[in-house]
Amino acid sequence: MLGNMMKRPLQIIDLLKFAASRHPRQEIVTRRLEGDIHRYGYADCWQRSGQLAHALKNLGVQPGERVASLAWNTYRHMELYYAVSGSGAVMHTVNPRLFGEQITWILNHANSGWVFVDLSFVELLESIQDELPGVKGFVVMTDQNHMPNTKLKNVLCYEELLASEPTDYDWPDVDEDSAALLCYTSGTTGNPKGVLASHRAMVLHAQATVSADMLDLRNDTVLMPMVTMYHVAAWGAPYAGPLSGCKLVFTGDGTSGVAMADMIRDEHVTVGLGVPTIWLTLHNYLSENQLDIPSLQRVCVGGAASPIGLVKTYDKEYDVYWQPIWGMTETGPLVHSVPPQADIVNRPKDEQYQLQTTAGRPVFGIEHRIVDADDKPLPNDGETRGELQVRGHWIASQYFRNDDLSSFPNGWLATGDIAVIDSEGFMKVVDRKKDVIKSGGEWISSLDIENIVSQHEAVNESCVIGVKHPKWDERPLLLVVLNKGHQLSKQDIKDFLTGKIARWWTPDDVVFVDELPHTGTGKLVKNTLREQYQNYLQENVS
Amino acid sequence: MLGNMMKRPLQIIDLLKFAASRHPRQEIVTRRLEGDIHRYGYADCWQRSGQLAHALKNLGVQPGERVASLAWNTYRHMELYYAVSGSGAVMHTVNPRLFGEQITWILNHANSGWVFVDLSFVELLESIQDELPGVKGFVVMTDQNHMPNTKLKNVLCYEELLASEPTDYDWPDVDEDSAALLCYTSGTTGNPKGVLASHRAMVLHAQATVSADMLDLRNDTVLMPMVTMYHVAAWGAPYAGPLSGCKLVFTGDGTSGVAMADMIRDEHVTVGLGVPTIWLTLHNYLSENQLDIPSLQRVCVGGAASPIGLVKTYDKEYDVYWQPIWGMTETGPLVHSVPPQADIVNRPKDEQYQLQTTAGRPVFGIEHRIVDADDKPLPNDGETRGELQVRGHWIASQYFRNDDLSSFPNGWLATGDIAVIDSEGFMKVVDRKKDVIKSGGEWISSLDIENIVSQHEAVNESCVIGVKHPKWDERPLLLVVLNKGHQLSKQDIKDFLTGKIARWWTPDDVVFVDELPHTGTGKLVKNTLREQYQNYLQENVS
Ligand SMILES: Nc1ncnc2c1ncn2[C@@H]1O[C@H](COP(=O)(O)OP(=O)(O)OP(=O)(O)O)[C@@H](O)[C@H]1O
Ligand SMILES: Nc1ncnc2c1ncn2[C@@H]1O[C@H](COP(=O)(O)OP(=O)(O)OP(=O)(O)O)[C@@H](O)[C@H]1O
Ligand SMILES: [Mg+2]
Ligand SMILES: [Mg+2]
Repeated sequence: MLGNMMKRPLQIIDLLKFAASRHPRQEIVTRRLEGDIHRYGYADCWQRSGQLAHALKNLGVQPGERVASLAWNTYRHMELYYAVSGSGAVMHTVNPRLFGEQITWILNHANSGWVFVDLSFVELLESIQDELPGVKGFVVMTDQNHMPNTKLKNVLCYEELLASEPTDYDWPDVDEDSAALLCYTSGTTGNPKGVLASHRAMVLHAQATVSADMLDLRNDTVLMPMVTMYHVAAWGAPYAGPLSGCKLVFTGDGTSGVAMADMIRDEHVTVGLGVPTIWLTLHNYLSENQLDIPSLQRVCVGGAASPIGLVKTYDKEYDVYWQPIWGMTETGPLVHSVPPQADIVNRPKDEQYQLQTTAGRPVFGIEHRIVDADDKPLPNDGETRGELQVRGHWIASQYFRNDDLSSFPNGWLATGDIAVIDSEGFMKVVDRKKDVIKSGGEWISSLDIENIVSQHEAVNESCVIGVKHPKWDERPLLLVVLNKGHQLSKQDIKDFLTGKIARWWTPDDVVFVDELPHTGTGKLVKNTLREQYQNYLQENVS
Repeated sequence: MLGNMMKRPLQIIDLLKFAASRHPRQEIVTRRLEGDIHRYGYADCWQRSGQLAHALKNLGVQPGERVASLAWNTYRHMELYYAVSGSGAVMHTVNPRLFGEQITWILNHANSGWVFVDLSFVELLESIQDELPGVKGFVVMTDQNHMPNTKLKNVLCYEELLASEPTDYDWPDVDEDSAALLCYTSGTTGNPKGVLASHRAMVLHAQATVSADMLDLRNDTVLMPMVTMYHVAAWGAPYAGPLSGCKLVFTGDGTSGVAMADMIRDEHVTVGLGVPTIWLTLHNYLSENQLDIPSLQRVCVGGAASPIGLVKTYDKEYDVYWQPIWGMTETGPLVHSVPPQADIVNRPKDEQYQLQTTAGRPVFGIEHRIVDADDKPLPNDGETRGELQVRGHWIASQYFRNDDLSSFPNGWLATGDIAVIDSEGFMKVVDRKKDVIKSGGEWISSLDIENIVSQHEAVNESCVIGVKHPKWDERPLLLVVLNKGHQLSKQDIKDFLTGKIARWWTPDDVVFVDELPHTGTGKLVKNTLREQYQNYLQENVS
């Protein structure tokens, strides 16, 4: 028997509509690529999104058509998010940090018609435009005064497009299961795969995001997403922000320590979102310049494991709560977290810190489990390792235009992460399936070792990879970037590990490097390193 | 084009499942009808709900079948909520405060098979059981020791039913649009009408309820719903509580000032839910006994307009924020509110108090508007009056087994409330359509007058109704209950109104009464009073 309830669609445009009426003057502040600071309210954003929707209509954009962006976090990018999805088309965010060929491949695979591009990425597109047969034209996201001299064909100016359009748009009701957002994975472990999110998934994800169990966004929060709108929708901040009525701070192309510190200070940022590397960058800048960031209360950190060194540093030096998050492109992305709730912060400090290096517990709407090679559930005992599987309202059920369903067994997503889950439900990623080091048939967790090494005061960043070994098949190799002005011997590091890990986990050798390679989303690219160092142990006697 | 996302159902059972794993030891505390205090955690509630689901299966309860309750707020009633809806049947809460004939009519209209009943209402059911052909049997919600000597036929004991059942239940996935909860309206203005809520509606309602824009429930909230689980699901507290992980405090059949004050003190209640009368009762008790309630931070007050006198009293005497709510059985019920957010509490006190007498603004997921007699939208100017219409994810689209769709024009719910909406979106009910006083063709708002009269320190409660008048068709008559030990003349009250309302709104007469009649949900029954006093002005010269 069905209930007698109205069936309204869960749709993205309603998030901004809500903010425009409930928090019309709450600010969205942007460090513009043009060089200045721009600020306006949700009501302005709503009106300009209406103008943009008219412009898209004039360009002939059809429902379901992909509209691509290569752009930073800005108010214009946010308008694009709402105008595209709101009018029934699909917002396709492209990561401009990928290689040119990857970008070409992605744009063609998605068959995106129009490409909206920030000033920074015009040149990149010029170099590949001839390989993009499906692209009808480009819109540079700036005003007439800043339009570049460009070889892009069929190029338009964003502000010109909007200028004469009415602010009222007759937004259609969409099917809540229809596609709203297309984003490809980081390509950390291979070729990017497309994840096509629905309106329903993004609205339910936004509800979970604002909740106290995840980002805990309120209308007095000042949120600075240092995760990008070009990858996983800045963790959904453009959707969750309006729902919560929080102030949004966008740093444009500013990803340096100084850019972040300035915005935090000037706009009184209370919550930041970003990968661990970003917070390492900020910390490096602050400590070099002996600066403080009193308004900041929390950094929400995902995309990679949380190193205990940074957890402690942020607590002790800045009184900032380091809040771990787990997620992936395929999962909204937000799923697990360790929010600063009573049951966490009332524990002894050391226990709290340990929890802050886990990925936390899933929010309402998602189930998780670990399984063995036959997809059989394993116990949540904090010891047993298995592949993490998740299922829920904002989890992908397949990749876009991809028949390979091997990652989606029995209605679950096989994440490719190897994890443990403890009896309280805290999940911890111990490795990626592809990164796991198999030494003589046994697993060694690279993340565990990295986490310990990161606690050494001389260490800035570290990376453990499995490399070829004649006897054991694979053995761990440790790569280390030292802090400026610090010195350390290989033996110092090995001594530091003694007693903290099983003896046979000790890396066979230590290599000091100036920097480690990261993806556009700030992750260690281990497969590149594995290739580079695969014969290292055979060539070098340690 | 559809998104590539998993489609999981939004279902009620998942709320408790979440709490059982995320907040297993968070407490549900009940003042039992057996006389003692009972406390257990969400994990216990989850296990016993599993046992109960097995018991329901043994009783032969089918998917879609209605299972009725006549019961207070207790942990057992909460278990019933989850076991019934979770197993695919429909939880039918019956208001035991209605007249016997109304209850008979409702149970037969719903065709409920089994009736779960608290000790208090056994007698009531004994008196009507012969008129309930569809009822298969009764379950008394107590243990063997407390089973009453009853004439009920086919009667079972709740604890006996559960005792030998396993705690694991294989909860089915349900269609999210299927019926979960059936509740009839208060019958304030006529015969009760059935509202049949779906799983989806109740889960989305719970999400909105825990949000900062509505009840703002967190895992350190201690929530005491003084609205009943037998009417509008205690405003959804049994669903929103587990979602937020807050502590729940159930007062059983204790609705007196002392019962509330004791629970608030002993359990450190931070947030209360209830109609204005409840908070008047509490205040009367506290002030008579010179008691304080330091843990209480907020009372969330709906079901009737918020009188400014009580708003101020709660602020000044108890430092408790009075948070108005608007809703009705047909709307989840929670829709509008005035939460204590910065944009409210940073205003000058008097402006804040005024806002606290409005019903507030809708949460995300609901749209509202006021319309004229032809359903044409009217301006939100804070002056124009019109019938309030709402639409959204947890709004009824028709009444259960009722062909009359006149309350559901063009996809909206016509609420029967006459309201104004100001430019900021704050909605204020000025009257019920059926209560509005039409004097010489013009409308007089009974609620406005009541609100002013309630501010007189000698006044405990007041009521304005339209009664027959030879010249003006209808004129307002004011009924007043004075505070203990206070005296007032008719002229005193008229003088008090002078200058605060239009001269022609002044009630033609004032009647002092000992008490006013209320419905089971604490509302003034104006139609009874209208009947009683209809000829008053013609018979009495004022
Ligand atoms: N809290 C965390 N702890 C450990 N690892 C994390 C955490 N959060 C995210 N990750 C890692 O990031 C991955 C998701 O990253 P993303 O979706 O951006 O692309 P990617 O997996 O890096 O790229 P690709 O799938 O193309 O190889 C997860 O699978 C996990 O390995
Ligand atoms: N904040 C509020 N201000 C004024 N009135 C309110 C408020 N909240 C609720 N109400 C009144 O309560 C009504 C809803 O009550 P409920 O659904 O319990 O049944 P009822 O309308 O009293 O009964 P029936 O529909 O059977 O006559 C609303 O229509 C409105 O008139
Ligand atoms: Mg991946
Ligand atoms: Mg009603």
